Amino acid sequence: MPTALIHHRLTVDLKSQAYPILIGESLLQDDALLAQFIDGHQVMVVSQQPIASHYLHYLSASLKKYHVDHFIFKAGEQYKTVDQWEKLLVAMLRHKHDRSTTLIALGGGVVGDLTGFAAACFMRGINYLQIPTTLIAQVDAAVGGKTAVNHPLGKNLIGAFHHPKAVLIDVQTLSTLPPREFIAGLAEAIKYGLIMDEAFFAWIESNLQSILAKDAATLLTLIQRCLALKASLVSEDEKDMGRRSLLNFGHTFGHALEAHGEYKTLIHGEAVAIGMLMAAEVSHRLNHLSTAHLARIKKLIYHCGLGRWVGERPSADTLIAFMQQDKKNKQHKLVLILLQRLGEAYKAVDVPVDLLTRAIACVDL
Amino acid sequence: MPTALIHHRLTVDLKSQAYPILIGESLLQDDALLAQFIDGHQVMVVSQQPIASHYLHYLSASLKKYHVDHFIFKAGEQYKTVDQWEKLLVAMLRHKHDRSTTLIALGGGVVGDLTGFAAACFMRGINYLQIPTTLIAQVDAAVGGKTAVNHPLGKNLIGAFHHPKAVLIDVQTLSTLPPREFIAGLAEAIKYGLIMDEAFFAWIESNLQSILAKDAATLLTLIQRCLALKASLVSEDEKDMGRRSLLNFGHTFGHALEAHGEYKTLIHGEAVAIGMLMAAEVSHRLNHLSTAHLARIKKLIYHCGLGRWVGERPSADTLIAFMQQDKKNKQHKLVLILLQRLGEAYKAVDVPVDLLTRAIACVDL
Repeated sequence: MPTALIHHRLTVDLKSQAYPILIGESLLQDDALLAQFIDGHQVMVVSQQPIASHYLHYLSASLKKYHVDHFIFKAGEQYKTVDQWEKLLVAMLRHKHDRSTTLIALGGGVVGDLTGFAAACFMRGINYLQIPTTLIAQVDAAVGGKTAVNHPLGKNLIGAFHHPKAVLIDVQTLSTLPPREFIAGLAEAIKYGLIMDEAFFAWIESNLQSILAKDAATLLTLIQRCLALKASLVSEDEKDMGRRSLLNFGHTFGHALEAHGEYKTLIHGEAVAIGMLMAAEVSHRLNHLSTAHLARIKKLIYHCGLGRWVGERPSADTLIAFMQQDKKNKQHKLVLILLQRLGEAYKAVDVPVDLLTRAIACVDL
Repeated sequence: MPTALIHHRLTVDLKSQAYPILIGESLLQDDALLAQFIDGHQVMVVSQQPIASHYLHYLSASLKKYHVDHFIFKAGEQYKTVDQWEKLLVAMLRHKHDRSTTLIALGGGVVGDLTGFAAACFMRGINYLQIPTTLIAQVDAAVGGKTAVNHPLGKNLIGAFHHPKAVLIDVQTLSTLPPREFIAGLAEAIKYGLIMDEAFFAWIESNLQSILAKDAATLLTLIQRCLALKASLVSEDEKDMGRRSLLNFGHTFGHALEAHGEYKTLIHGEAVAIGMLMAAEVSHRLNHLSTAHLARIKKLIYHCGLGRWVGERPSADTLIAFMQQDKKNKQHKLVLILLQRLGEAYKAVDVPVDLLTRAIACVDL
């Protein structure tokens, strides 16, 4: 049934293609809407538990006119591997999917990244749809064509750029999202304000109660504002060679924190939140960020319930060693995204290590 | 030392990038030439035996100013697998290669396809150079950005489009190519004449003795004419959605023949040669190809030493069943590339199965 309420429509505009982002309610239940983005007769839905139990039946009911197969796996980032990716590809081959098949990623970042990478490599590239069901995937991972799996030597080291045919964001799926994951997703939302939109940062400050209460209208606006910023960066710099790298604000620190905890202590958004506190502290010590702005950043992050350490905290030296292994570091030089001011980021090379060490050490968790 | 003699220079012109094809002699020995296509400080050379023993020392001498690692594996198509691809990626990670690394594929189609697919997926895509050393890779596989590995369920089922930074063709590498592989490469050269250039077909007929004697000047012209045709098709249709599919002439039959022999009896070019005979026979029976032209095609293929069966010949029905599994067949419909006339191909859907059966059965091997 065509029941979708589409509140916002954005476009990712690339050199060789363009694709829509639809943000609204009841999108999963709308067969006519889904049909717009499915070319062939075959569909493979990829999902993880418990998302599949919550939402797969809506999607299945809307896909009745297609031949639909499923690839459902257990919850957890530990399944974002070459092995699981190969299992998905083999399942598609065994079920005789061909080049006209559409993959549908129904889930969070793990499902989206794995599905996108399978779509990138199945018979040299097929269509896929992103239906992100976590806040972090809705405001970030599902848009931009970055697909990947992890390797024991690092996250997202094996992957490809492969854009979806469409991104369908149904805010109703956030109702079942565990609070810890919802809060972690806010870190990425705050990031957009910090790096490129001071007014949006202020909007989050003013609307934090409604956001934390998961008010639908507020969440629709939150997601729309994040993705308008992301779509502009991706359209400008598809392959992450220039300005798109500003999205890594807090991430070099965050990845190092995740790696140090062997991906078992902090979840991604939590690590990014701490990373943003560290990056803000460094920006302040480089005389870019005022004391008042640094205080506002800390306050917002703490008020969300973010910026709290879990497990054993690494020393600044240990963290810097992990950071130097990050894949964004060309020829092992440490490149950091820092704030020029609240609402503007820049790429910094050769930040003095002693300043970095002191800044990291003084971040209060 | 800058010693290369570059006889021909072509360009593959895509929407988002363009890259050169250089055809000449002593290209491997030219450090300045190679340096034009290497951005960072790190290089990973991928090769197979015995090519590595023959030519790696030339390349190594020309790459002295880079940090060079090697990934050398044994001869054989059986290494074109997900497993070997992952081994290459892990070797790159262990040797601390980063996004600025350049991969160099020194070898035939197996090396080129595996290296290209690794370049497509290492940290979401890095640069690579194609240095094809077999005739079939020089006239076909190294140009066009098709990368892949095989799967037990079919060839090239897992892969990506990822174009090289440059294709460097040194005809001197053909001197060590085993005669069987050299001859098999001629099948793809003949294909270009058949599908889009009658004059080139006639040129091959007239120059067959010089070609078979591996006369350098003749080979340079042969390769240049093949790649000028291929570059035009790839530039026009990067992702193989339209006219580029004409390059599959003989290939649906050929893939089925290879699969039936479990990839142990016929090598690719040999299978394609038989496939072209079958496709020509079908084209003739559909009243497109004249008796005289069919005779010329047969004569040239047989004079090359191609079009001969090895092992147990499958029945026409068995072959058609294999063909229906080919990945080019959307929704299991059999799509064939046939000849409209000598020098012009077209895409045929729904060729009557009984006509196909009779045509296959009557091809004399």
